[in-house]
Amino acid sequence: MALIVQKYGGTSVGTVERIKAVAEKVAKFQRDGHQIVVVVSAMSGETNRLIGLSQEITAEPTPREMDVLVSTGEQVTIALLSMALNEIGQPARSYTGAQIPIQTDNVHMKARIEKIDELKMRADLNAGRVIVVAGFQGVDFDGNITTLGRGGSDTTAVALAAALKADECQIYTDVDGVYTTDPRVVDKARRLETITFEEMLEMASLGSKVLQIRSVEFAGKYNVPLRVLSSFQEGPGTLITVDDEVDMEKPVISGIAFTRDEAKLTVRNAPDTPGIAYKILGPVGEANIEVDMIVQNVGAQGATDFTFTVHRNEYAKTKKILEKSIQEMGAGELTGDDKIAKISLVGVGMRSHAGVASRMFDTLAKEGVNIEMISTSEIKISVVVAEKYLELAVRALHTAFELDKTD
Amino acid sequence: MALIVQKYGGTSVGTVERIKAVAEKVAKFQRDGHQIVVVVSAMSGETNRLIGLSQEITAEPTPREMDVLVSTGEQVTIALLSMALNEIGQPARSYTGAQIPIQTDNVHMKARIEKIDELKMRADLNAGRVIVVAGFQGVDFDGNITTLGRGGSDTTAVALAAALKADECQIYTDVDGVYTTDPRVVDKARRLETITFEEMLEMASLGSKVLQIRSVEFAGKYNVPLRVLSSFQEGPGTLITVDDEVDMEKPVISGIAFTRDEAKLTVRNAPDTPGIAYKILGPVGEANIEVDMIVQNVGAQGATDFTFTVHRNEYAKTKKILEKSIQEMGAGELTGDDKIAKISLVGVGMRSHAGVASRMFDTLAKEGVNIEMISTSEIKISVVVAEKYLELAVRALHTAFELDKTD
Repeated sequence: MALIVQKYGGTSVGTVERIKAVAEKVAKFQRDGHQIVVVVSAMSGETNRLIGLSQEITAEPTPREMDVLVSTGEQVTIALLSMALNEIGQPARSYTGAQIPIQTDNVHMKARIEKIDELKMRADLNAGRVIVVAGFQGVDFDGNITTLGRGGSDTTAVALAAALKADECQIYTDVDGVYTTDPRVVDKARRLETITFEEMLEMASLGSKVLQIRSVEFAGKYNVPLRVLSSFQEGPGTLITVDDEVDMEKPVISGIAFTRDEAKLTVRNAPDTPGIAYKILGPVGEANIEVDMIVQNVGAQGATDFTFTVHRNEYAKTKKILEKSIQEMGAGELTGDDKIAKISLVGVGMRSHAGVASRMFDTLAKEGVNIEMISTSEIKISVVVAEKYLELAVRALHTAFELDKTD
Repeated sequence: MALIVQKYGGTSVGTVERIKAVAEKVAKFQRDGHQIVVVVSAMSGETNRLIGLSQEITAEPTPREMDVLVSTGEQVTIALLSMALNEIGQPARSYTGAQIPIQTDNVHMKARIEKIDELKMRADLNAGRVIVVAGFQGVDFDGNITTLGRGGSDTTAVALAAALKADECQIYTDVDGVYTTDPRVVDKARRLETITFEEMLEMASLGSKVLQIRSVEFAGKYNVPLRVLSSFQEGPGTLITVDDEVDMEKPVISGIAFTRDEAKLTVRNAPDTPGIAYKILGPVGEANIEVDMIVQNVGAQGATDFTFTVHRNEYAKTKKILEKSIQEMGAGELTGDDKIAKISLVGVGMRSHAGVASRMFDTLAKEGVNIEMISTSEIKISVVVAEKYLELAVRALHTAFELDKTD
């Protein structure tokens, strides 16, 4: 017998029929002898409907009242799912965030969980009941309703699993697991049986939006085994675990993430003096533009080349800021490119295997792909290439690092 | 400065525009120096939408979960109204039933209020905030969400007014007050400035569905001055008060209520023996048919005539039951009429004035209206007449008892 926390997102509970299907699924787990806590999101579309109502009232809704408003979305789902479970003979009981209670700080619309009381849940589980909890919401220490921000239902599930010391936290979604790379680009992309938290974080932050980053961090921190699987088809999904042993069988690279959302800007021949990075990036940061990769090379004769990437939407704005900076510095020359793509190899195996970088560069060179920027971290190597080479590069790397489906 | 509890029903908050209009109205009261607690219902249509969802899941929804579900309707409204108030510069804060808390018993879907904590409300009022409370809902002593049953928002308002010792509880609705009779039948019907709780109860139970009966009982019990007025037009409405003095100016009759919903059945020449009423009405009650008026006359030679009224929809069913009873008794003969109407004069003034009944009977006789049944209580006289005479009778009585508009 295992204690399992399951989370079903908005699409999985998007209609009454789907809610009934989730009830059948949950009841089957319970019949198989497990104890089940279910976390649900609002029915798909509902949160947007509620936000729409608030926007008709005001452009700046009171954050406290926004939380009162949108938290009703999940409350509707927990009631309907509990009814559906009771209807098929599986005793169930719903809880709002405030009823558990899931205590949070008082930062409305992006609250953080501080404490979860497991007493009521434990009593229900021992009585054979399925517990249905509203995701995404909590209550502060003054009894105000709070929400964790959009997508926060994953975090609720992980936090409940941690509090209950659950055997597994299962995130049901519309994909059947985490893939070595985007299957729409590489048809040989393979579902991973397992991936480490660190790898998942790198994959998630690079656009493989299977899980909310925060919930993965949370699961890693509290050592909650996390599994991603499909609501709509059978299968084991992908288990996200702590990398507590060196698995010799495990490939060096777990996956390849990529994004086309970036643009790069280079200041050439800037004076190589202390504080030059701040002089260039300071005004960019002040304009609330997020900078991703940063590379600096020493150029000729005491000058330096300084390159960084920003979100593609910010390209024009950033360019304008830099033109002004260069004028003020009285030096340098600006170039830029918004037709770039970033490709990252991710894998904890990198730590113990030399040569990942050289194999990557070699592979790209053989395909005639020029590397424009390189950035490395302990478990990730990222390169920037011209956007037109993206698919070619990803497919070549997928094969070179033995990630292709073998069947 | 007065402390006022205001209740706005589903129609009054049925759209975002109407919610904004309510906010303006409330803010004006606050600017005029009053402290305001607002109780709101779900936006019109919302409760039915939620019930519809539950019906798609199951024919017998778990009552506990039904309360979790439908209570979201009011929660949406309190958030939107609070936002609208904040938007126009009037600080406001919303509370669900559980947040106040409004403590109830644990009878889901028809809970009764047991205790209201006024601490938080008092603090907000003293800080100059408008308090916006979700009507119709509460929380039991185990933290489960409860609802007071449909229309229970009036009761919430009265209960809050009692707990806060408010100066007045104002019920905003789509009519501008309580009338001497239905203005659609008598165009000279007049809005009453005041009416007593007792009279209001008699009027309400007879089909003048301006207020929920339970909220009127509640207001009477706790001596809360209750005012019915329109959300959509200006005016003082009707004040419902305790009859604490004899007002010599007050007319003997306050209003005339009527209903076409009834049918009458008569058992003639039933044996006049003890238990005969039970023999006739017992099987009717067992079939869950509610009996309204009952009249028994001693007939000729130890036999009795027994007449009663039921809802018109139950006429055929009741007739069938009686046919069987008569057969079993071996006596009696059955007649019936489902084309009747009941007309009631209501007024606390009746207590101290003799002759109301005779004036009523005289008025009807002059119009050629035959009285088929009579029933009296301390502040009410009801008669049953053929339905075709209804309008004629009501108009004649309205004039005879000096209820007509004088302008």
